[in-house]
Amino acid sequence: MGNYAIAIHGGAGTLMPGTVSPEKEKEFHDKLSESLQAGYNILSKGGSAVDAVEAAVRVMEDSPLFNSGKGSVFNSDGINEMDAAIMNGKNLKAGAIAEVHTVRNPISGARAVMEKTKHVLLASAGAEKFAKEMGLEIVDPSYFYDEERHQQWLATKDTDSPNSWAGDGIPEGTKKYGTVGCVALDNQGNVAAATSTGGINNKKFGRVGDAPLIGAGTYANNKTCAVSCTGEGEYFIRNVVAYDISALMEYKGLTLAQATAEAMKKVALLGGEGGLISIDNQGTICTPFNTSSMFRGWINTAGEKFTGVFR
Amino acid sequence: MGNYAIAIHGGAGTLMPGTVSPEKEKEFHDKLSESLQAGYNILSKGGSAVDAVEAAVRVMEDSPLFNSGKGSVFNSDGINEMDAAIMNGKNLKAGAIAEVHTVRNPISGARAVMEKTKHVLLASAGAEKFAKEMGLEIVDPSYFYDEERHQQWLATKDTDSPNSWAGDGIPEGTKKYGTVGCVALDNQGNVAAATSTGGINNKKFGRVGDAPLIGAGTYANNKTCAVSCTGEGEYFIRNVVAYDISALMEYKGLTLAQATAEAMKKVALLGGEGGLISIDNQGTICTPFNTSSMFRGWINTAGEKFTGVFR
Repeated sequence: MGNYAIAIHGGAGTLMPGTVSPEKEKEFHDKLSESLQAGYNILSKGGSAVDAVEAAVRVMEDSPLFNSGKGSVFNSDGINEMDAAIMNGKNLKAGAIAEVHTVRNPISGARAVMEKTKHVLLASAGAEKFAKEMGLEIVDPSYFYDEERHQQWLATKDTDSPNSWAGDGIPEGTKKYGTVGCVALDNQGNVAAATSTGGINNKKFGRVGDAPLIGAGTYANNKTCAVSCTGEGEYFIRNVVAYDISALMEYKGLTLAQATAEAMKKVALLGGEGGLISIDNQGTICTPFNTSSMFRGWINTAGEKFTGVFR
Repeated sequence: MGNYAIAIHGGAGTLMPGTVSPEKEKEFHDKLSESLQAGYNILSKGGSAVDAVEAAVRVMEDSPLFNSGKGSVFNSDGINEMDAAIMNGKNLKAGAIAEVHTVRNPISGARAVMEKTKHVLLASAGAEKFAKEMGLEIVDPSYFYDEERHQQWLATKDTDSPNSWAGDGIPEGTKKYGTVGCVALDNQGNVAAATSTGGINNKKFGRVGDAPLIGAGTYANNKTCAVSCTGEGEYFIRNVVAYDISALMEYKGLTLAQATAEAMKKVALLGGEGGLISIDNQGTICTPFNTSSMFRGWINTAGEKFTGVFR
């Protein structure tokens, strides 16, 4: 235990209890635990919140279980197209990349934008060129291929239903707003947030969601909190959800629990589904969602560890 | 006069009084006036704020005087690469496109995203494909070519100074954060915001600024106000400026003048330069900027018209 804590998510969705095989559910818990531990080990050695959130997200990006990095969903052209963002609450520096197909760990690409450029958001071919020049690991697009995701895409590519999600141990028709994210507080009092996603299965026309947009899906500010969102990204953009939580705390004096509840209420009012993870500058963690499931986990300031899938 | 009003900007920059030829300055005033009138004519006939902001921005996009649409700056590959966003304060619907090279009026592309899709942001080739399918006017990339902008790019393309801006009647070394935008209130009490830009001269790696990002460069909400920003976009993204103004009004009860002053103060604290135009749901207009110049204009609820370049 210490003055540091971490929370992660692996995406909100409409999985129902009892419909996922026990083996599959255990796989999710194990990988969430591994991701948490990767970030927490950094924090417990006095490392920075930025290092911790990047490390935790990389574990999920490297796993085909989650819709980010390897295992990302396919767009309407049958290609994996990824977005990511990171923000440092200490100095409000932020970086993001959108529509990349060759950067093995998009979250590290986002971090390079934050630390090596004056820019915040780089997109598509330019972002890939930048990542390569920075010496980040570049892979052939086939690296991101996952058989289950591909079958899911094949089943939906000629339909108007872009977002169903099925596979080994997962029932047909399940909607999943796949995205991964991490928020952390380090023992210097700094918060950080990171989000990474493959977007929506069968997405068209270069659609970009909330994940790489600072203030929408990702935000961090030492004055208040750090937030990473998952869900129907458009509703999170229109409500500027991640920054709204910070503003509700700073300007109205709400607690993190009150601010996140209010922000989720506003998403639901527009008709949106999803969830978020958040941590304030005292280490309080809130992980609200209005879907039936959200892959999530945390290790709090008391050192207690939790991983969960359903309510 | 009526319960409607409109404000526009054609970009903030570092022009100094007396350094621009009188002929050039008159050209700017005339075009700003034409843009204002295009929007105001819609409002005065009972038209919507969304129609007005789109019409006003299209006038500036079609003019090579401003860095949007025709006359956009060139990126590091010598290509015009444009972004735009629009938001309707009535229902918080929003649309944006980024990194397009063939859509004659990017603001109309953004509006099509808002009205014809469930998405908010489409980028690069996908966005262009969408605009074409929607029947928007598609042009050869050479349409956007402007000789002055090209000379400006040639002069800076091998340097690290991406943003100088010179040309006929404009002194060498002038920095200009070119972007155009419009905010309006219609007689139904609805506000809207629109922003369109060619980004930064000689920009690299698919850099996207604040213009197409809802909450950063563009935001509208009938509860509070509509905002369009111009300047060093990264600072506006990191501060989520457009939404911050709305949040300061809604959560802290600030007036539009107080909220915009506070938001600009926060931009300056991070070291950023620029400005913004804003209108609240009563028709109050505020156009603060911390640069030496900002092309701007308004017609207020009293029917008074103003266009300006310097402080």
